Amino acid sequence: MTAKHVTPVTVIGLGSMGTALGEAFVRAGHPTTVWNRTAAKAAPLVAMGARHAEAVEDAVAASPLVVTCLTTFDDTRLVLRRSGTALRGRALVTLNSGSPADARETAAWAVGHGARFLAGAVKNVPSAVGAPDTLLYYSGDRAVFEEFGTTLRVLGGDTVHLGEEADLAALYEMAVGAMLLPALVGFFQGAAAVQARGLEVTTMVRFAGKWLDMIKSLLPIYAEEIDAGDYTEAVSSVNLFLAGAAHDEDLSRETGVDTAWLAPLHDLVRRAAEAGHGEHSISALTEVLRKAERQHTYG
Amino acid sequence: MTAKHVTPVTVIGLGSMGTALGEAFVRAGHPTTVWNRTAAKAAPLVAMGARHAEAVEDAVAASPLVVTCLTTFDDTRLVLRRSGTALRGRALVTLNSGSPADARETAAWAVGHGARFLAGAVKNVPSAVGAPDTLLYYSGDRAVFEEFGTTLRVLGGDTVHLGEEADLAALYEMAVGAMLLPALVGFFQGAAAVQARGLEVTTMVRFAGKWLDMIKSLLPIYAEEIDAGDYTEAVSSVNLFLAGAAHDEDLSRETGVDTAWLAPLHDLVRRAAEAGHGEHSISALTEVLRKAERQHTYG
Ligand SMILES: NC(=O)c1ccc[n+]([C@@H]2O[C@H](COP(=O)([O-])OP(=O)(O)OC[C@H]3O[C@@H](n4cnc5c(N)ncnc54)[C@H](OP(=O)(O)O)[C@@H]3O)[C@@H](O)[C@H]2O)c1
Ligand SMILES: NC(=O)c1ccc[n+]([C@@H]2O[C@H](COP(=O)([O-])OP(=O)(O)OC[C@H]3O[C@@H](n4cnc5c(N)ncnc54)[C@H](OP(=O)(O)O)[C@@H]3O)[C@@H](O)[C@H]2O)c1
Repeated sequence: MTAKHVTPVTVIGLGSMGTALGEAFVRAGHPTTVWNRTAAKAAPLVAMGARHAEAVEDAVAASPLVVTCLTTFDDTRLVLRRSGTALRGRALVTLNSGSPADARETAAWAVGHGARFLAGAVKNVPSAVGAPDTLLYYSGDRAVFEEFGTTLRVLGGDTVHLGEEADLAALYEMAVGAMLLPALVGFFQGAAAVQARGLEVTTMVRFAGKWLDMIKSLLPIYAEEIDAGDYTEAVSSVNLFLAGAAHDEDLSRETGVDTAWLAPLHDLVRRAAEAGHGEHSISALTEVLRKAERQHTYG
Repeated sequence: MTAKHVTPVTVIGLGSMGTALGEAFVRAGHPTTVWNRTAAKAAPLVAMGARHAEAVEDAVAASPLVVTCLTTFDDTRLVLRRSGTALRGRALVTLNSGSPADARETAAWAVGHGARFLAGAVKNVPSAVGAPDTLLYYSGDRAVFEEFGTTLRVLGGDTVHLGEEADLAALYEMAVGAMLLPALVGFFQGAAAVQARGLEVTTMVRFAGKWLDMIKSLLPIYAEEIDAGDYTEAVSSVNLFLAGAAHDEDLSRETGVDTAWLAPLHDLVRRAAEAGHGEHSISALTEVLRKAERQHTYG
């Protein structure tokens, strides 16, 4: 592949994720310009063949496609503000986490500076960047997605455009991402319990993995129940989870693991039962999560 | 298959799960005796060919292998107490949820009544009973597991004996199961957020499924970190999750979804950072979950 046929790309922000993005572009043969606040982090990429720009405006000016991977949207605007008029005519693609409101604000800001804008999210860890199965989703200017789709697909084979509204990727990232910390803390709690018994945590990995497969198999069922607002065909009922809540306290007592973080979860289950969902599917908790806030806002 | 070559089995407790167990035994050709407090629930199984016992002592006396699937260990002992001396010489296998202490108590009680005892757990939903990939684990009398292994495997192809101590299945069930409610509530919260935007929850199922695959791929890494007590090679740091905590509040504000249940999770992350784990792997939360309780108990 010669540089002629591939799009030059700029990557701004070379933390764990930005470095992985830069590496993927360099490996795929894209002329890659990189910039980072802490310039030293560019060294490994330069060693692979990337060009390091001293000034952020030079980095932005170097490529028609500018990918940023900073911590937040605020950081992104802060850094790009220093690029002056260089953004004009560029396709700007952000790949940081952030709220839908932040994504909208950044979209308006970017368009105001003459850029075409796409806000994306990498739904995986840095080491998965570039793999055929890795999911990235984007929202915003569809023309940008179509023009640079081949280049963006270098970052992961499962690359999706969610819609023209720039905040959709942030919305889905948050919606989907909401499982991560709770699921992990659940795993760490189990790990602490197994360790308290003098057993290795690795002994539970296979079982926990299958358990996640089981949870995955339930999601389409729950999604349909929630979309239909019909919780009456329960695979696992709210009452079953209510009975389980008692066991969590036993676990805490027996293993010395702190299960206090589960109290608000048990409270949600209890409130669902009190709202008449006892024999309904556990997915009826969705109603309680909504209702609670409505009461809070209007009640 | 003739009845001669297969072990007669008794199933006590015909709720969602017990009915699925009974069906699997009947389908596999086992002479199956069933009992339930609410006798009417036996009808579908009787229609398939199971024998219904009016009295629990007759049910227990009918088979060398007695499988119970009641709500708790307390319910199990309550029901079996009425079977008099019928338990003597039987292999009793419990398949309910419960704490390790409850499992130990039930094991001692069963052995005291002359039964051989195995406490198991079905790590799946009723509709998965009988599938080649379905996981069930057992702990307790290994001789029972070996004698009735073929029969028990009818309930799921991935059937494991964890050890002689009767409470190990309960311990692993709780440890592994600790991910379920938190992960589901995370999904329901995301569902409520997507719905608040007027989008269908089914649109996020594929993404959420891949996200669970991603989480699954992290478990062996975290397990090794926790076993080694070395959190320094962070794939995703505590500080990264700390930054994410702020976004959860944005989500609540923007979508009207109640995210209050996340507060103690964010608090764990903050405490991990304060304890010097900021740049360490998120798996270092395991230390905080342990430490908190220790402080509570001895501090
Ligand atoms: N790592 C993951 O597993 C993962 C997965 C999915 C999504 N993400 C998202 O990707 C984004 C980046 O994550 P990361 O893991 O690469 O984080 P990281 O390793 O902490 O890197 C953060 C990057 O942002 C830069 N930065 C932050 N604030 C800045 C500012 N005010 N001015 C200039 N530069 C600034 C840092 O520059 P310095 O080097 O100078 O500090 C660094 O390049 C985040 O939004 C994260 O949520 C990460
Ligand atoms: N369903 C699942 O997805 C699932 C998955 C894994 C594990 N489990 C575990 O399996 C066990 C049973 O669950 P399930 O879903 O089958 O529950 P279920 O549908 O609520 O059935 C409960 C069963 O226990 C009986 N029972 C409860 N208390 C009793 C008492 N004091 N005396 C006599 N009978 C009593 C009920 O009898 P009546 O019919 O007379 O009320 C019924 O047969 C639980 O420990 C559960 O945690 C369930």
